Amino acid sequence: MDLSERIETGMQHALRMATASGCPPRLARALRHAVFPGGARIRPRLCLAVAAACGDRDPVSATAAATAIELLHCASLVHDDMPCFDNAAIRRGKPSVQAEFGEATALLAGDGLIVAAFETLARETVHAPRLTGPLIAIIAKAVGAPFGLVAGQAWESEPEINIDQYHRAKTASLFAGAVSAGAVAAGGEPQAWLTLADALGSAYQVADDLYDALDDGDNAMGKPAHQDQLNGRPNIVAVRGVAGAMAHLRQLVDTAADSVPDCAGADALRGMIRNEAVRLMPKKLAASAA
Amino acid sequence: MDLSERIETGMQHALRMATASGCPPRLARALRHAVFPGGARIRPRLCLAVAAACGDRDPVSATAAATAIELLHCASLVHDDMPCFDNAAIRRGKPSVQAEFGEATALLAGDGLIVAAFETLARETVHAPRLTGPLIAIIAKAVGAPFGLVAGQAWESEPEINIDQYHRAKTASLFAGAVSAGAVAAGGEPQAWLTLADALGSAYQVADDLYDALDDGDNAMGKPAHQDQLNGRPNIVAVRGVAGAMAHLRQLVDTAADSVPDCAGADALRGMIRNEAVRLMPKKLAASAA
Repeated sequence: MDLSERIETGMQHALRMATASGCPPRLARALRHAVFPGGARIRPRLCLAVAAACGDRDPVSATAAATAIELLHCASLVHDDMPCFDNAAIRRGKPSVQAEFGEATALLAGDGLIVAAFETLARETVHAPRLTGPLIAIIAKAVGAPFGLVAGQAWESEPEINIDQYHRAKTASLFAGAVSAGAVAAGGEPQAWLTLADALGSAYQVADDLYDALDDGDNAMGKPAHQDQLNGRPNIVAVRGVAGAMAHLRQLVDTAADSVPDCAGADALRGMIRNEAVRLMPKKLAASAA
Repeated sequence: MDLSERIETGMQHALRMATASGCPPRLARALRHAVFPGGARIRPRLCLAVAAACGDRDPVSATAAATAIELLHCASLVHDDMPCFDNAAIRRGKPSVQAEFGEATALLAGDGLIVAAFETLARETVHAPRLTGPLIAIIAKAVGAPFGLVAGQAWESEPEINIDQYHRAKTASLFAGAVSAGAVAAGGEPQAWLTLADALGSAYQVADDLYDALDDGDNAMGKPAHQDQLNGRPNIVAVRGVAGAMAHLRQLVDTAADSVPDCAGADALRGMIRNEAVRLMPKKLAASAA
């Protein structure tokens, strides 16, 4: 199975468990709507690519970690689209969960996906109990408070925002979690991968800012543009301009690719990082960066 | 340390971690507001009482399970009070999290508490990795979909409601989780405790319905009355009347106490169940049931 198949199989299994017979039918539909069809599945692919580079000694645990990370990413999108945040009607080219099912069901679907993520990790690592706790600790840190996704989103409600902590928590943290979890699931050392995680998380934030500022039409992020400006959020394009932001993005991708430690799958992973970066860039600009 | 001290110490430690330096300050305040001062901490006390009755072989893991259960209960209260559900301004005699901090921060505080619950379980069972997965599986089942709290709340948004599944998911599931987790943390067999969990969960639901219908003034549930009627939710008092509901409650408490399996702390636990039941009842009615 290639990486994408492993991820979709993991997601299908997790959703089958969460929406099993007895689940309120509307909630079950909302849970599936939040997860399928997916976006680029960047974070779980990164997780599995790092596990592969580390020798993939326990592919079942690596897939569980990748699945949990994507479930948590989907949960954060469902809650980000709620009226009290972005009030987004569209996500990944179709109605957002709150637009399709209403606020109450969207709130619960997000909660249910968070729980399903940790449940998946516990269930799928039964054969490797020494991995369960460390994987949950890594992934919970990436999404909770004080440094994860929840904290990142919360910075937007603070009277004073620390932009570095904000970006680190809102975007880089889950990339770092994906990389660390992939390494740990395969029996590797997460420390060796921290530069990669950091650089890639920052690169993704810059790409996100570029999309938001440029409105590329065919939007790889799957969400409406100009949200940062509308919501008064910091955006690197406003500070450095488009050319400056692109230069920064290229530099971050170089740093990420160069930081891949020597290991069996290192070259494949470096190639994946460079391809991913080009895929992430607004199409108008990608040619100049290839 | 008695049960209450163990719970409060566990909650303090979990909140110290979640609100550590670097946490957005407003989010940190909201997280603390959601958790302190607590309500009756019924579910974690039940968890620890069952662990004690089973010999309390691993008190650190039992406290971790109790703490996680209470964090999840607090998260559910924060989200239940949101405008898209009860739109409650008061909780435990003070402003609800959404009333004090706004919807956005309340949504994130609930999410953060869910994550903190699983993070606590992973962190505090490092010495006993064979317990981490089973405890997370039990507790996730009690709060997620298809059968936990999230599903229970979701039944309220369904066009047709299955009242038995609704009550089981919304109330009984977390009692069952508390009992099972307490037994497993102490090396006991959860199967022996399922009747107790079921009866106590149902008793709590009846008590909740009685409070809602009667508006006892000094409300042990810490929330406004007549919400069921206002929100068109099923309530056993509407079906059986006050006397019928009280008789049912007494019968459920008897079933719960009688079902305690033979073990070292059985008598103490039976006493706790009967005391808890009287404490739960609306004061107007408790005298007649003592």
